[in-house]
Amino acid sequence: MPKIVDHDERRLELVDATWRIIARQGLESATMREIATEAGFANGALKPYFPTKDTLLEFAFSHVFNRTNLRIAEVSAGRTGLDALRAFCLEVLPLDDERVNEARIVVPFWQRAINDPRKAAIHQQSMAEWLATIRRFLAEARDSGDVDAAVDDSVLAGLLLNMLLGAQIEAALAPDGHTDFGHAAQLEGYLSLLGKKPGR
Amino acid sequence: MPKIVDHDERRLELVDATWRIIARQGLESATMREIATEAGFANGALKPYFPTKDTLLEFAFSHVFNRTNLRIAEVSAGRTGLDALRAFCLEVLPLDDERVNEARIVVPFWQRAINDPRKAAIHQQSMAEWLATIRRFLAEARDSGDVDAAVDDSVLAGLLLNMLLGAQIEAALAPDGHTDFGHAAQLEGYLSLLGKKPGR
Repeated sequence: MPKIVDHDERRLELVDATWRIIARQGLESATMREIATEAGFANGALKPYFPTKDTLLEFAFSHVFNRTNLRIAEVSAGRTGLDALRAFCLEVLPLDDERVNEARIVVPFWQRAINDPRKAAIHQQSMAEWLATIRRFLAEARDSGDVDAAVDDSVLAGLLLNMLLGAQIEAALAPDGHTDFGHAAQLEGYLSLLGKKPGR
Repeated sequence: MPKIVDHDERRLELVDATWRIIARQGLESATMREIATEAGFANGALKPYFPTKDTLLEFAFSHVFNRTNLRIAEVSAGRTGLDALRAFCLEVLPLDDERVNEARIVVPFWQRAINDPRKAAIHQQSMAEWLATIRRFLAEARDSGDVDAAVDDSVLAGLLLNMLLGAQIEAALAPDGHTDFGHAAQLEGYLSLLGKKPGR
């Protein structure tokens, strides 16, 4: 009887191995052979899953993005407005080791995307979704009166999204084990700038 | 008589060639040989200037950073507070082709810095300088009453710096020739959130 293999699970094992290797030694020096070894694959067994390092990197990035979106869906369920926006941002910001590691995947992905329209399109699609999510939460917060800033929501959303992207850079380049960059305080600062101020 | 060579100028020619090649074909596929050819160097003549691709990349990044800082010093001369802060950010933001190209240098540098403490230190030093500059302008704006937001200046500065970094990502990954990302409007939005609002 042929052995039954869960191919999706095998792919995720490869993604985990990719993360560990990239986090340890960087994107350039991570070879497909090392990734296979790290994941416990025989040399050559990796090819059917990911014929090239690029396809593996695309899958790893999509996986990070999907996983982040699952977390976002979970934490924002039943919330609206600024409450939902805060929960969204707290999931995206690199506030713990796991997400600092994700930042270390995303930055190499961005670098590759500069000269690879297919990867750039994955990024742009993801960012368009996030912008739409942020704008929906801002519109809810306007309706409830929690946001009264005299700045257009599309501008506020773009500003916040760029702050979230910049936070990934800061986290990815920080020394190992560093997870407190003041990002949560920056988020609270941003939110308080939008809202009604005490005494107004 | 030996030919007199301006080594600094030669280094800058190499930086320009590096930019053109990286912008065209990406960091990985840019070989030292191609960079030498693009700059009009004989093969091998490049080594005395930059023994490795890494040393060239470090020099190119430092040059971008220095050039940006020269522009900042020029435009902010004689200005203070929000006026100076606006001028600073307008120089850093990728608002034209030249600075979109600079973003395409900076993102590969960041990616390399993840696993290279020396490059990461260059980045952190640069960012510490920018943060200090932003905080100085914010403090001046507090003194003159132009900023009255109930958010700590260090938080406001960190938020702005991350927005400036995120803008580099957006610009670097955009299709060629695209230079309008709404970043100037985001900057105005940020500044207006800090300041006194009409009617208050």
